[in-house]
Amino acid sequence: MALAMEAHSALSAIIAEKSGFPVIWASGLSLSSVHGLHDANELSWSQVLDALSFMVDRVEIPVLLDGDSGYGDFNNFRLIIKRLVRMGVAGVVIEDKVFPKRNSFAESAQHLAPVTEFCGKLKAGRDTVGEGGPIIVARAEGFIAGRPLSETLDRCAAYVEAGADAIFIHSKRKDPSEIYDFRRAWKSHTPVVACPTTYCSESFANLEAAGIALAICANQSLRASIRAMTKVCRAIHRGQALSCVEADIAPVAEIFDLLNYDELYQAEAVYLG
Amino acid sequence: MALAMEAHSALSAIIAEKSGFPVIWASGLSLSSVHGLHDANELSWSQVLDALSFMVDRVEIPVLLDGDSGYGDFNNFRLIIKRLVRMGVAGVVIEDKVFPKRNSFAESAQHLAPVTEFCGKLKAGRDTVGEGGPIIVARAEGFIAGRPLSETLDRCAAYVEAGADAIFIHSKRKDPSEIYDFRRAWKSHTPVVACPTTYCSESFANLEAAGIALAICANQSLRASIRAMTKVCRAIHRGQALSCVEADIAPVAEIFDLLNYDELYQAEAVYLG
Amino acid sequence: MALAMEAHSALSAIIAEKSGFPVIWASGLSLSSVHGLHDANELSWSQVLDALSFMVDRVEIPVLLDGDSGYGDFNNFRLIIKRLVRMGVAGVVIEDKVFPKRNSFAESAQHLAPVTEFCGKLKAGRDTVGEGGPIIVARAEGFIAGRPLSETLDRCAAYVEAGADAIFIHSKRKDPSEIYDFRRAWKSHTPVVACPTTYCSESFANLEAAGIALAICANQSLRASIRAMTKVCRAIHRGQALSCVEADIAPVAEIFDLLNYDELYQAEAVYLG
Amino acid sequence: MALAMEAHSALSAIIAEKSGFPVIWASGLSLSSVHGLHDANELSWSQVLDALSFMVDRVEIPVLLDGDSGYGDFNNFRLIIKRLVRMGVAGVVIEDKVFPKRNSFAESAQHLAPVTEFCGKLKAGRDTVGEGGPIIVARAEGFIAGRPLSETLDRCAAYVEAGADAIFIHSKRKDPSEIYDFRRAWKSHTPVVACPTTYCSESFANLEAAGIALAICANQSLRASIRAMTKVCRAIHRGQALSCVEADIAPVAEIFDLLNYDELYQAEAVYLG
Repeated sequence: MALAMEAHSALSAIIAEKSGFPVIWASGLSLSSVHGLHDANELSWSQVLDALSFMVDRVEIPVLLDGDSGYGDFNNFRLIIKRLVRMGVAGVVIEDKVFPKRNSFAESAQHLAPVTEFCGKLKAGRDTVGEGGPIIVARAEGFIAGRPLSETLDRCAAYVEAGADAIFIHSKRKDPSEIYDFRRAWKSHTPVVACPTTYCSESFANLEAAGIALAICANQSLRASIRAMTKVCRAIHRGQALSCVEADIAPVAEIFDLLNYDELYQAEAVYLG
Repeated sequence: MALAMEAHSALSAIIAEKSGFPVIWASGLSLSSVHGLHDANELSWSQVLDALSFMVDRVEIPVLLDGDSGYGDFNNFRLIIKRLVRMGVAGVVIEDKVFPKRNSFAESAQHLAPVTEFCGKLKAGRDTVGEGGPIIVARAEGFIAGRPLSETLDRCAAYVEAGADAIFIHSKRKDPSEIYDFRRAWKSHTPVVACPTTYCSESFANLEAAGIALAICANQSLRASIRAMTKVCRAIHRGQALSCVEADIAPVAEIFDLLNYDELYQAEAVYLG
Repeated sequence: MALAMEAHSALSAIIAEKSGFPVIWASGLSLSSVHGLHDANELSWSQVLDALSFMVDRVEIPVLLDGDSGYGDFNNFRLIIKRLVRMGVAGVVIEDKVFPKRNSFAESAQHLAPVTEFCGKLKAGRDTVGEGGPIIVARAEGFIAGRPLSETLDRCAAYVEAGADAIFIHSKRKDPSEIYDFRRAWKSHTPVVACPTTYCSESFANLEAAGIALAICANQSLRASIRAMTKVCRAIHRGQALSCVEADIAPVAEIFDLLNYDELYQAEAVYLG
Repeated sequence: MALAMEAHSALSAIIAEKSGFPVIWASGLSLSSVHGLHDANELSWSQVLDALSFMVDRVEIPVLLDGDSGYGDFNNFRLIIKRLVRMGVAGVVIEDKVFPKRNSFAESAQHLAPVTEFCGKLKAGRDTVGEGGPIIVARAEGFIAGRPLSETLDRCAAYVEAGADAIFIHSKRKDPSEIYDFRRAWKSHTPVVACPTTYCSESFANLEAAGIALAICANQSLRASIRAMTKVCRAIHRGQALSCVEADIAPVAEIFDLLNYDELYQAEAVYLG
């Protein structure tokens, strides 16, 4: 089973890559959150792609974009596919909800798109993607929207027929039962992706044993940074000094290492003469 | 003495505000770093302002922009001032170095701009800023560039003459001696700003006692997030489970709180009918 | 009756202003077209606002944004309103179609939004716009979608109730009969806006006499530039010289005049010392 | 001799391509002007590349970017080269002036960059561009800056040594004498590019006979559009009707043809089901 780690910036992508992860998950929730926005397509698709572009520039490992519901209809989606091809993005996930979508864990109503509409979107993406372009993953939000397993299975079969390279099955339960129910009933060879945000106590070994091909760690870097920034801000404000946090934060030299300032110095020596 | 806390995103600005800080420092090093770039004007001014715009949208407290060396000549700087006025940014710091600048702690050569050129830039900013527009802070990099105190004092007097509202005096020593030397010799009423990144063991009380009007905590949120993301990425990768980090990261509900999802739910109830 | 002239760039806005028009129409068709895109929400809202921002920077007269169907749901629309407020945009028109919209003259199917949904969007805009913010104009596409006059009248009454400051009534007939039918039947004091693209032989005097408050010249600058660029490109390519077109194009000095290079020279004299 | 036609938008690039030109010149003056800005690096490099990206998306022929003085130092230039590689841009011209540059025809002072600095920039570009990446053209502004031919020849030899694929020699004389003087004295096989904006009465045949490899029609589309938009705006404003200009502007159907709306209709038939 492959593992993807969330990133919300080039810097967090670099850290995930250096930590050994083989895939980056460019999370919609995380990108929205760092911009101070709700995960409700408040960020425009071009703002998402601008942020994505900085990530792709800085890591060697494949980047998988959380493409929400495709940012509109089939026509918007195929335009974005063209940009992803040029950018060298490895894959894009689109979910079978309407535009603008709502975060799957939010209290907002969750509206699935009609099957034919979503299949048309997948087909348009497939016809646009070309040789060597990004893979297209269909994310099934049936469990999130309270639909029965049977409907989700039917939908997913249609999505594969329409051109999906993999199925991302989402659940907000504290246990992986819905995911496992789906996996057992899913007879296709098309791989299944899962995202253990709420059922985080399930080990990756168990997910793999259950037949999951890719597990996405969807927001842990963002959440780590929130906890850390909150602690440090409070400590400095309370302590009225910087010394109290110095041991808990990366030194400036580590920033320079992560961003390879040595290469800049060497280039200056060569090109500034 | 006022305290400004660094932010590199709307989210980090929200956290700084909620922690009680009265001012946000939109750090050039931090903004460059999250975009995976060197702090060497690799990010364009419009990319900086796009990021800044998301911050200003989300906090009530004043935001002070680290404007590097003004992104070009006097003409570039006055254009940026116009955008900052519209954006409602509280202030901008520009440093007396050439474009493109290099981070003050980097090993690269540090080139000061000619005094008349930098004063022309300040004057152009001053004439553009209008009533109620952002304050303009001149950042003196003399100590960073290895220049004597006397030159820095002369330069700063010229900067105030040209329209600077405050002087930011920078040092990369482990102790505040250069800052204190400057402060003692600085007879003007124009306030002095300091940035205790390297002399972080000095308490804010001491800085205040020495006559510093504003201390900038220039990169601690970024550095906290780097440490935390690195730890969490490594732990997940090593532990092959998410459960091992769950206690050390903010819950998803905290993201929703920080970004006020409740307001979205209430608006949905009103406007979706 | 007021007249708005289309612009698709800061430069075309400057020309319209200098020609005496009192209002700029930032046309969605024109903005899409100069970017090489279909008028089908292919351009993201942030790309539209980036382009708009350059216009607003350069003209003194009010700019009215063609806001398509609001770029999503009520929530997207209210976010855009916040940006328009900050930008100083005078007004925004949103049409009662779904997202992504299709150009009213295109052969694509035209889908009206449900009345309650569109009214929720208007209301959200109204509640966000605040004192002195942009006016909100509801554009009724009933005639474009083949709906009867009675439905359009009912819808428009609901739109005014929801907070629309004016009604833009659109038609693709070669004569203004639909517009005049609507105007006669429209008993409200809320002003009516028209766009005589297809019924271009109708004089402004007649439109005014019929009770139209604002007529929008929606795309003539774009279309003039297309004709002219095509002619000049062909002439140069055929003639294998530049001399053959020199009399038909603005001199470089006129570009400098339009963009006020004299001000730059004067500023250089002052600030470069 | 090849001919490049200026474009300032995807639309103008499409028109140039359809008119038979084999190369697009993405002009800095034109891009600045349509954004309402001076040709003085007021537009950021990322704003230039955003505009360029829309052009490259829509034409098959090679696009040559007017890269001003490279948007900063060697480091800025090599970053931009990386983006141009990904974007599929065919070439970039950089001129041997400082940043921020001034338009060569403007009354502002013209400052040449030190030779070693400019050569370092070219070398950095060359080392970054890789196989199949954009060609790099060095633009010599010696005549514009009032320098003697001998200096320009020496500089250009150094530029070729540093990696320039071609030399663009610029002049603001009404006749091509400076260009021809340079061409005669230039003994290298490296091709020479010229831009007959001011010496527009010289035929392309003469330029070719003189040994020019590429002539750039640098701003005629922009200037055609300015003349046409001015005429049409004035005529509508004066005539108080649209009918008076209808014969002089492209019909809406021509916009739809240029932007291939037929393809959209066909895709709707396929993907909307």
